[in-house]
Amino acid sequence: MLKRGERLDDLHRDGLKIIQNPAQFCFGMDAALLSSFARVHHGQRHLDLCTGNGVIPLLLSAKTAGESFIGIEIQEDVADMARRSIKLNNLEDRIKIIHGDIREIKLKERFDVVTANPPYMQVGHGEESPNEALRIARHEVMCTLDDVILAASQLLVSKGKFYMVHRPARMVEMFASMQTRGLAPKILRLVQPKAGEPPNMLLIMAAKGGNAGLDVLAPLIVYGEDGKYTEEVRKIYYE
Amino acid sequence: MLKRGERLDDLHRDGLKIIQNPAQFCFGMDAALLSSFARVHHGQRHLDLCTGNGVIPLLLSAKTAGESFIGIEIQEDVADMARRSIKLNNLEDRIKIIHGDIREIKLKERFDVVTANPPYMQVGHGEESPNEALRIARHEVMCTLDDVILAASQLLVSKGKFYMVHRPARMVEMFASMQTRGLAPKILRLVQPKAGEPPNMLLIMAAKGGNAGLDVLAPLIVYGEDGKYTEEVRKIYYE
Repeated sequence: MLKRGERLDDLHRDGLKIIQNPAQFCFGMDAALLSSFARVHHGQRHLDLCTGNGVIPLLLSAKTAGESFIGIEIQEDVADMARRSIKLNNLEDRIKIIHGDIREIKLKERFDVVTANPPYMQVGHGEESPNEALRIARHEVMCTLDDVILAASQLLVSKGKFYMVHRPARMVEMFASMQTRGLAPKILRLVQPKAGEPPNMLLIMAAKGGNAGLDVLAPLIVYGEDGKYTEEVRKIYYE
Repeated sequence: MLKRGERLDDLHRDGLKIIQNPAQFCFGMDAALLSSFARVHHGQRHLDLCTGNGVIPLLLSAKTAGESFIGIEIQEDVADMARRSIKLNNLEDRIKIIHGDIREIKLKERFDVVTANPPYMQVGHGEESPNEALRIARHEVMCTLDDVILAASQLLVSKGKFYMVHRPARMVEMFASMQTRGLAPKILRLVQPKAGEPPNMLLIMAAKGGNAGLDVLAPLIVYGEDGKYTEEVRKIYYE
């Protein structure tokens, strides 16, 4: 099952394993937090944009009673790795991986829930990795924030929910793009490394065709004074 | 100096006093936080929209080396009360109060810094006070959020700074309006009553003609575990 450079990691949930390649991209805390923030209810259909090694569909299939989970990934070898993880976990009946470009993809189906943990960095901002796979994962080489939001809006049913993790610095343009694309930001949660520190991530839920009014939750604090995960983050990872 | 129903309060800064009428509106923590968040540098001209009893210009005149401070207030008796406070503090040479409507006001001057602690509630949302003065102070009867932002943009010099305190629930439309009116949101600080609780206020700085990219600061926490003001809020009030 494993190709050269790949390793098998434990997802600490229902015995799930995931194939990762450190030379490409390993999922981070943002993916774990997003999969906990997103709500997929019984019988709902879920789609994950920029799915990478498929960590979000894998975690959501274990955490929720959703009916089906689809991940879209633009890099063919990364999509192949995600498919092998799904096979390894015997989840081919619940999770599908599509190799494709979210800017061009045509699907007949519409989804109740769309998620995305997209690249955070604009081209021209921050150092780009010389490694092509890492560059695509971190920088908006293959899709911009607005491409992701447009795809989410097009692929959602009316009143469907879009969940995304991103950087606080992009909040203003994220809201603007969502409004332009018919998604109303409804729930915002900022993530702080520690109490008293600025947030370095945001979690957002936007509803297709929703009305105005944003619910800003208490921030999620990752590390306690003791330098260990807070109780809340520990539960997200291990419970 | 005092009219019926009015009282004289201490601003705990340079011996400043302020006339307030509890039947109209008394300044709250939001005004204190805004006057600490706003930066008025040496020689700069400052304008406060929806100034009420003039608490923001009064505090900024004591806290900063700004050259001049102007407050605009739509209610004539409230504007008169603000003028009497300024006279009482012998600050007529630094602070002026204009009785006027921010939707119509024509000023030749442009300002380096504009502040606003506007009404938070949309008409039709939340119970409106039967008291006319309180209703105008709390609900958008006389001006909407967009009216305030438009006035700020029109009255600022290029690259001038707009500082406002508002509710987190209005963040999305606030950003949209700012972008439409040529103000780029640059610094956001959420205010939480306590650690672990959702924010109930936001402080925002937007720059006229600024570029994209929002700096989200660590939240300001008002009360500690002991139920007393945190050190930071205590300093804002008393130092």
